Amino acid sequence: MERISVEEALNLVLDKVKPKTGTENLPLNEALGRVCAGKIEAPIDNPPFDRSPLDGYAFYSTDSADASETSPVILRVAGTVYAGDNYTAKLKRGEAVRIMTGAMFPPGCDCMVMQENVQTGKNGTEIFISSPVGAYENYIHSGEDIRKGELLMNEGERLSFAHLAVLAAMGFLNVPVKVLPAIGFFCTGDELAPAGKPLPAGKIYNSNEALIGFRIRELGFTPKILPASGDDAGVTAAKIDAVIEELDVLVTTGAVSVGEKDIFHEVFKILGVEKLFWRLNSKPGGGILCGIYRGRPLLCLSGNPFAALTGFELIVKPVLGKIASRSDLAVRKQRVKPDGDLAAKPVRRFIRARIENGTAHFPTGHLSGQIFSIVGCDCLLDIPAGTALNSGVEVEALLF
Amino acid sequence: MERISVEEALNLVLDKVKPKTGTENLPLNEALGRVCAGKIEAPIDNPPFDRSPLDGYAFYSTDSADASETSPVILRVAGTVYAGDNYTAKLKRGEAVRIMTGAMFPPGCDCMVMQENVQTGKNGTEIFISSPVGAYENYIHSGEDIRKGELLMNEGERLSFAHLAVLAAMGFLNVPVKVLPAIGFFCTGDELAPAGKPLPAGKIYNSNEALIGFRIRELGFTPKILPASGDDAGVTAAKIDAVIEELDVLVTTGAVSVGEKDIFHEVFKILGVEKLFWRLNSKPGGGILCGIYRGRPLLCLSGNPFAALTGFELIVKPVLGKIASRSDLAVRKQRVKPDGDLAAKPVRRFIRARIENGTAHFPTGHLSGQIFSIVGCDCLLDIPAGTALNSGVEVEALLF
Repeated sequence: MERISVEEALNLVLDKVKPKTGTENLPLNEALGRVCAGKIEAPIDNPPFDRSPLDGYAFYSTDSADASETSPVILRVAGTVYAGDNYTAKLKRGEAVRIMTGAMFPPGCDCMVMQENVQTGKNGTEIFISSPVGAYENYIHSGEDIRKGELLMNEGERLSFAHLAVLAAMGFLNVPVKVLPAIGFFCTGDELAPAGKPLPAGKIYNSNEALIGFRIRELGFTPKILPASGDDAGVTAAKIDAVIEELDVLVTTGAVSVGEKDIFHEVFKILGVEKLFWRLNSKPGGGILCGIYRGRPLLCLSGNPFAALTGFELIVKPVLGKIASRSDLAVRKQRVKPDGDLAAKPVRRFIRARIENGTAHFPTGHLSGQIFSIVGCDCLLDIPAGTALNSGVEVEALLF
Repeated sequence: MERISVEEALNLVLDKVKPKTGTENLPLNEALGRVCAGKIEAPIDNPPFDRSPLDGYAFYSTDSADASETSPVILRVAGTVYAGDNYTAKLKRGEAVRIMTGAMFPPGCDCMVMQENVQTGKNGTEIFISSPVGAYENYIHSGEDIRKGELLMNEGERLSFAHLAVLAAMGFLNVPVKVLPAIGFFCTGDELAPAGKPLPAGKIYNSNEALIGFRIRELGFTPKILPASGDDAGVTAAKIDAVIEELDVLVTTGAVSVGEKDIFHEVFKILGVEKLFWRLNSKPGGGILCGIYRGRPLLCLSGNPFAALTGFELIVKPVLGKIASRSDLAVRKQRVKPDGDLAAKPVRRFIRARIENGTAHFPTGHLSGQIFSIVGCDCLLDIPAGTALNSGVEVEALLF
């Protein structure tokens, strides 16, 4: 099978997957980070009534038309309206009402003044207005923030704290969100030894389960992590067969190269997986095998940690994004200036780096098997085939 | 009490709070996003042994010194070493061993060639090497990624997927992390009505509980949210008194202005709270009252949603950052160019905005009571007193 570009490979998979359907109605308290499942319109105005922005006195603005420093208008204080009060008595001309921040304007009032700008007399039963106040001065109209019937959010928006605050302001208890995809994940390799015990000679601890598993969790999903598999094609095929119907997508690491125990070629044959591509024409991440099995994408990453991560960021993440209707997981690029040099190579390369103020710092340790230098990185520098990386010369970065 | 600057106010609180002490040893699976509680050194090398980067054949490099296209060197294939194997037989001169990606080099071998670059003969029992291979060519040394004893992570680092992968590669089951702070939060106001029921006249639904509560959750904490309080100073003081010992910090919204029901002044008196400051000399967020009660910061935000959020981002978030040893929550600034104009005002202002490629877009609706336009924003433009905001002219933004 021909090696193909990352872009071709990604399109091959994206063409085959559909956004997961299904909606659940969640309490706001469980909906943070979830994807809105439909248009939501405002059931009420916000604010729901005309209200005061400040603490002070409300009255008829026309009553203050002739007010001046030398000849202030005197208004009788007819009552007090606190935030939360339903003050229904209509104000008479020549009257004012003490009003608190957020309180509803009593019928008739069309303005207010801050208490700091008013003189009070007769134990607070009258106030002196010493300059005219315009109609609707210091006046918040109902619906100034949100109009009843206005579109609040669209299908596909990811619910942030601000979205949920808007829904809370509208009195919603629940919000319809898209059902999360079921993401299966497991690692393969006879070389994997269990953590917490001394390492037998020739074995390694399984770092890919953490690397890819926690990366999936950082993206807001909870993967179903299956126990790591040994290098037995029949056993692995049976395992996939047993779980695939519960999943929307299955991700694996290891056993996708050309070695004798690179069992996924055989697993694909056993299961009759529709193979989409094997190996990209870029490094690392070349060793990635993808197919469709019973309608689900089977995305098999390299066993080399950084190669696995590169395949994950380039292919798996955008695929998860499509399945989960998460537009924030689509490929995001940024032009950056590296602060170091790398000689040209005949193959396109992706180099881990960390962006600070538009400058990309990349570690010296960037081999496929090196994990430590992934810490702190937030992008992959995309270095075209035959091109050197030159300090200060802009290059494209794919953001994690 | 004098209005003070955001910077002075923040320093007053930061001077009074200490990072929460206490460590817990968590399984890696529960440690994502938590803060490392101490230096961690590598217990082993990574890779733990010299290993092959590719599938091919390993041998003594000196055996290939005289190899050429016309006169290839013939090596006898003595065995196969798979990833995970403990291959202890020492290779003899003139021999090669078939080796898989990630497999340990057998004793004696100091190089390998990719299988694509080798001719095999006699049913795979011998190989033809047609060019010399240098010592340690295609050879990964043990410790090339991580050396035993090397510092892996420091106290205070927040554990990302990559940190956890490094710990997994080292065979750790657990990691010491700092205990999370207990963050109390409640809203006040007689005007708050319960969600899910029709809104009585004069009342509003409680959006601050969602706005600030979910913002705290977005930062990686789980606040202890207490039921909203009415405007009764005695009841509110008793409520604070009853919970403060369980908390490291308490955040509230509402009742901090100059109105009759702005009860927090009275609450502070009842409890004998050491008042640090009241009101900033900037808008919004002016209405913020902070004190220390039984050693804990009491951070009382405005009831106006955007003013509450501004106070949260300017003061509360960095305070939580210090208590939780989360350096990522310290104040972060970026120079941005706004794409619109605002006339100068005599007071310093913070305007919500969204940054895209260095340009800050800000919504028309930026009053304190407006919630809807917070959606999508990721910063506050910091507009100094007496200064206009001019399209294309750089200004400082405080990042959410």
